Amino acid sequence: MASHHPIMTRDELAAFLDREFPQIHMGGQTYFVDEVRPLSARMRMAYHERHIRPGGTISGPAMMALADLALYVAILAHIGPVALAVTTSLNFNFLRKPEQRDLIADCRLLKLGKRLAVGDVSIYSEGSPEVVCHATGTYSIPDRR
Amino acid sequence: MASHHPIMTRDELAAFLDREFPQIHMGGQTYFVDEVRPLSARMRMAYHERHIRPGGTISGPAMMALADLALYVAILAHIGPVALAVTTSLNFNFLRKPEQRDLIADCRLLKLGKRLAVGDVSIYSEGSPEVVCHATGTYSIPDRR
Amino acid sequence: MASHHPIMTRDELAAFLDREFPQIHMGGQTYFVDEVRPLSARMRMAYHERHIRPGGTISGPAMMALADLALYVAILAHIGPVALAVTTSLNFNFLRKPEQRDLIADCRLLKLGKRLAVGDVSIYSEGSPEVVCHATGTYSIPDRR
Amino acid sequence: MASHHPIMTRDELAAFLDREFPQIHMGGQTYFVDEVRPLSARMRMAYHERHIRPGGTISGPAMMALADLALYVAILAHIGPVALAVTTSLNFNFLRKPEQRDLIADCRLLKLGKRLAVGDVSIYSEGSPEVVCHATGTYSIPDRR
Repeated sequence: MASHHPIMTRDELAAFLDREFPQIHMGGQTYFVDEVRPLSARMRMAYHERHIRPGGTISGPAMMALADLALYVAILAHIGPVALAVTTSLNFNFLRKPEQRDLIADCRLLKLGKRLAVGDVSIYSEGSPEVVCHATGTYSIPDRR
Repeated sequence: MASHHPIMTRDELAAFLDREFPQIHMGGQTYFVDEVRPLSARMRMAYHERHIRPGGTISGPAMMALADLALYVAILAHIGPVALAVTTSLNFNFLRKPEQRDLIADCRLLKLGKRLAVGDVSIYSEGSPEVVCHATGTYSIPDRR
Repeated sequence: MASHHPIMTRDELAAFLDREFPQIHMGGQTYFVDEVRPLSARMRMAYHERHIRPGGTISGPAMMALADLALYVAILAHIGPVALAVTTSLNFNFLRKPEQRDLIADCRLLKLGKRLAVGDVSIYSEGSPEVVCHATGTYSIPDRR
Repeated sequence: MASHHPIMTRDELAAFLDREFPQIHMGGQTYFVDEVRPLSARMRMAYHERHIRPGGTISGPAMMALADLALYVAILAHIGPVALAVTTSLNFNFLRKPEQRDLIADCRLLKLGKRLAVGDVSIYSEGSPEVVCHATGTYSIPDRR
């Protein structure tokens, strides 16, 4: 099992995303790494009109992208930026209509194995205790030497 | 259970999406309703640079949005455009790297109940028999009179 | 939304299970309600040879039954024994081989709505901090008057 | 990718299960391998009182065990009996109340990779076209030489 302590800082992770995945910022940056801790990471998605659907709700795909990204960042933080990890599965439950403000995604790694990493993600409207979307996901981790 | 036969045509569904969800076409239309049949629907996502990730792969969130939309269209086709159906759960398995061409999403409704509709979606690269992403999802259907 | 506080005690829940689902105790009782708290419940599955598979591991179906039961008990605790709730979906990630001792299942309700209840369940080997199986599930709740 | 054609017959698979997992037959054999075909397998669960719940329905855990077993058999059929494959994830949607007769589980392999195999399973009451439970699952396949 990889280290239970992050080996990349928040700033290193943000710089990695900017460099490798510039297209997630297309139309203006809305995804931010807020915090990295042992076996966990927190991402933020800024409230932005391109994520909004009729009635003021935030689109499901925007939340799914946020959850996937939070899991990816949590894993990279612990295995380092060289690894080419790919999502193999994601499961979502949509629980409530999000409010019209930033979303916070808290990812907790449940397993960080040699081949598979598994985590769950709870997404909240900032300042609210209620989970609006819960996700679990698995990444496949390539062989390392 | 609602009718097993579609009560909306492909053109009516496309017009409904254009009117109610114009933002899914932002940056140029890439999602198209290809076909509607009893308890099934087929959507297409045109190959477009905004769905591409480094290495030429198609982004996971773009495929997740496509699967969600295919399920939504299959349900609306059978219950009509007035219903406010919302996604309650989605499960994805990412199986292969998609090719650099259009993606086809085939949705099959497994249940079309009074309160819940459930379906699965197989996503292919056009012209290839291999499933690149498989999804199952549930929509909650509001009470109707 | 139903009350966030349990309206059934641990003993009432145990008596309800004994009366309504005697077959889960077939071959000797192994499922026990350990604790009920606001929006959560804890079940225990006693280590028993009928749950064991070759190599000393505990069978996946035994853990799946435990998770489903923990979610059911958490929901009943908050809506009362009369409701006929049925499982509509369950998602499992199997993370590690359990140890040869009792399993503890901690269920947390993420949503307790009028029609749907959603929760997640973390299963541990007693005395170990590591999650061996993580589940999320949805129950459909019948209309109440 | 392993062969797309089975390398074990139905009888070889049944004998393997009898030898390696005798406990699934405890209380009388109810799980049977009905058929193996390229990238698919069909299992049967005989109607038996130990799988029944109040009201005559078949227990969810019995159906979950059947789905897991169908996926396991489909994989083994294609990679052979020596491999120690383990379930890493399972997702279930429960769609209808099964009838009081045998259940048939049709498994289709969606991916049979070097490290992961993924499939879906549709469970029917024998003689009925309607899916009562739909599952998708992933097995991790150990390194082979």
